[in-house]
Amino acid sequence: MSNDSSLRIIDDLRAIVAAGTPGMRLPSTRELVTRHQASPLTVQRALRVLAADGVIESRPGAGTFVRAVHPAKTSDYSWQTAAMRGNQSRLGPIAAAMRSASPDVIALHSGYPDSQLLPERLVRAALTRAARSEAALSRPPVAGLPGLQAWFASEIGAATRAGVTPPNPNDVIVLPGSQNGLRSLFRALVSRGQPVLLESPTYWGAILAAAHVGVDVVPVPSGPAGPDPDELDRAFRESGARVFYAQPNYANPTGAQWPSQVADHVMEVVRRHGGFLIEDDWACDFGITTQPTPVAAGDDAGHVIYLRSLTKSVSPAVRIAAVIARGPARERILADHAADSMYVSGLLQTAALDVVTQPAWQSHLRNVRQQLKARRDLLLASLTEHVPVARVEHLPAGGLNLWAQLPSGTDVLRLTRDCEQAGLLIAPGPEWFPAEPTAPFVRLNFAGPNPEDFGRGAQILASELAKHGPA
Amino acid sequence: MSNDSSLRIIDDLRAIVAAGTPGMRLPSTRELVTRHQASPLTVQRALRVLAADGVIESRPGAGTFVRAVHPAKTSDYSWQTAAMRGNQSRLGPIAAAMRSASPDVIALHSGYPDSQLLPERLVRAALTRAARSEAALSRPPVAGLPGLQAWFASEIGAATRAGVTPPNPNDVIVLPGSQNGLRSLFRALVSRGQPVLLESPTYWGAILAAAHVGVDVVPVPSGPAGPDPDELDRAFRESGARVFYAQPNYANPTGAQWPSQVADHVMEVVRRHGGFLIEDDWACDFGITTQPTPVAAGDDAGHVIYLRSLTKSVSPAVRIAAVIARGPARERILADHAADSMYVSGLLQTAALDVVTQPAWQSHLRNVRQQLKARRDLLLASLTEHVPVARVEHLPAGGLNLWAQLPSGTDVLRLTRDCEQAGLLIAPGPEWFPAEPTAPFVRLNFAGPNPEDFGRGAQILASELAKHGPA
Repeated sequence: MSNDSSLRIIDDLRAIVAAGTPGMRLPSTRELVTRHQASPLTVQRALRVLAADGVIESRPGAGTFVRAVHPAKTSDYSWQTAAMRGNQSRLGPIAAAMRSASPDVIALHSGYPDSQLLPERLVRAALTRAARSEAALSRPPVAGLPGLQAWFASEIGAATRAGVTPPNPNDVIVLPGSQNGLRSLFRALVSRGQPVLLESPTYWGAILAAAHVGVDVVPVPSGPAGPDPDELDRAFRESGARVFYAQPNYANPTGAQWPSQVADHVMEVVRRHGGFLIEDDWACDFGITTQPTPVAAGDDAGHVIYLRSLTKSVSPAVRIAAVIARGPARERILADHAADSMYVSGLLQTAALDVVTQPAWQSHLRNVRQQLKARRDLLLASLTEHVPVARVEHLPAGGLNLWAQLPSGTDVLRLTRDCEQAGLLIAPGPEWFPAEPTAPFVRLNFAGPNPEDFGRGAQILASELAKHGPA
Repeated sequence: MSNDSSLRIIDDLRAIVAAGTPGMRLPSTRELVTRHQASPLTVQRALRVLAADGVIESRPGAGTFVRAVHPAKTSDYSWQTAAMRGNQSRLGPIAAAMRSASPDVIALHSGYPDSQLLPERLVRAALTRAARSEAALSRPPVAGLPGLQAWFASEIGAATRAGVTPPNPNDVIVLPGSQNGLRSLFRALVSRGQPVLLESPTYWGAILAAAHVGVDVVPVPSGPAGPDPDELDRAFRESGARVFYAQPNYANPTGAQWPSQVADHVMEVVRRHGGFLIEDDWACDFGITTQPTPVAAGDDAGHVIYLRSLTKSVSPAVRIAAVIARGPARERILADHAADSMYVSGLLQTAALDVVTQPAWQSHLRNVRQQLKARRDLLLASLTEHVPVARVEHLPAGGLNLWAQLPSGTDVLRLTRDCEQAGLLIAPGPEWFPAEPTAPFVRLNFAGPNPEDFGRGAQILASELAKHGPA
């Protein structure tokens, strides 16, 4: 194998390429061997050099070709717009709370807890065990791994009131995340174009899911003690809705928790209207000073459709949620799930079940509770010290967020952009309102990275607010 | 700790329960200790016995209670039907191809390859590595892990024709499975109630997805050489459709592969109508005697929306698919994905990328190809020997299935049930037809467990056919 003959072949091929056209087939290795009296290895080396230069390209099984010149075409895809027609709402794809942040900014915007609050050891061990198990190569039933179904059912069963039949494992459907679940629920329970009642403010993902599914959102105002049951009654009656979506425990963004009398009263209204409560129990693992009781634990007549996720408390990589429903509603949701996802990775289901049935899971949750309390109090103290104009009406007894009202007239979207430039990410309140925001709010997540930066974050917020605060 | 005192406490508690009402709180452990002069361990043993008997129940943190009597209520959920209105098509949730089979039946019905055909060692090693990596506890970008996006793009890039701009990694969206992808594509590209063209017969999951999304299915007949481009032209023109869903390589169920002239002609028709081809490349890893070339490799004008999955070739637990699209279509699909799933588990994405970039992945695929060839030929030989009336018009050059036509008049659904009772699972052909079946077909998967049973399976099919064959 000689370098000289390699170079000779390269020169020869460059000449062929220069005379040829893009896509033209080059002589085969065998032809080049004969032509240059060189070994196949020498020929191949020459070809590799030219391929690395981008002059030629080889296509396995087909041969070697003059590389197509790929000019930066200014492609015109405008025909697509006509082909797709105007069938999709024009919502932006990515909400503020989903944005990735670089490590050098102070990130109070996210909807997720920092990895320090995750049961890292349990998750890694469970995933490693699952990788060795049958679950790594097999397909679980459509409705979920029976053991995981039973675990989700037992959670509600443990809280079920006397005289109420607890859910059966078969009432549980394991889903690939609660966002997917929300869409399944809205599709299965609400006809397109029909109304659905949403707490206001409420989780932006629910608003987005409702918009994409094409149902008509009717906001029901909800404060620190939940919705006013009389308002809810009126909304059911006036809209003709049969479904109310709510977060009775530690609502996102406000942190509100319904007192048990409110929960009872709401259920009375829901029953009277022959309707459903979609209970999104997103923060059931994040009680801070109270222990949440799902509203679902008081219902066995199929009125509550219960949704909870393990994504935030176990790991964002273990994307598992569950819905608990009874009767024909359960069948419709299962049919939608089967047509949408068919099944959820058995590996993730196995790992999730492993994590939540370890004794260390309970001690982990207790530890998280303490950390959340310290973080919540620290962020609130930082706000009180540096941003006294920001008002946190409700100190949340659970969840991950403070919901702060800013002086009236504050342009929250502009403030959010300015804070970002100054190194602070916050989530603008308007994303949590199904209709227009009722006041300038921001959501501040105290479960993100580096709580030691909360003070500096509050200072940035204060100085940006001061610069171009209320109009 | 005495057994006698345990029994005494049990008797005492039974008396309390008998006199009490469901849900009534029992004396605390401390009270029982005092009352019976027993140790706490003895009291707890007594409580455990009664809990196991279902007489009492303890709720952590709350105490012990007389267990609610849960009579087998005959729940009436009929109110739900009114509440949900008739908004969902009445398709059954689970297709024949998705059914789990017990190990003692001969399973030719499934849509999945047997675990023996999966790269077990690679999958377990990749999942174990991923469990140790950052991916186990973090959240990837909405559109997918950049490395995995790049890998999917490079696959098409390697096959791209000269003069055609290959896709960019940013054109790739990683999805949680191709079933979910189909729904996203139909929703993003076709307005509700508008027509979509589907090859007929075609994948039941696509028919199901179209039905659930609420688009209007227009069948386009497709044979061993793909659809007749003139028929396709007519279907576009008459229906006003802008989207054609097809499987150009190793179509499920027929195994048909479009000759390159047909692919070119189809694309000409698609372009002329300013439309999209959704290319479902479900079997791109399962070429047997040919190497598939995606139609997408010839398009850079955004007409082909390319969908492929790793679920069947890597592992059903590594549920990963990808769509490659350009222009506003890509933006709509991404928006739908973000509102539906937000993101796909980074653990699964990391493991998938690990598997497909190992050198052993290519040798695994070569090995699978040989096994599929042997299995295909064995099943065909078994049919030829035992069921000469079954006609396999097209010997598939790839994929997992034989598509067998039975004597006219055969009641395929009844035959399927009878075969099941005799220990053989087959998939009835009607599920693959968007409209009525054109003849009695069954789909037989040669990639399932125990190929040594193919002969016996064919014998069962023959004897059931003979018993109550054609009308």
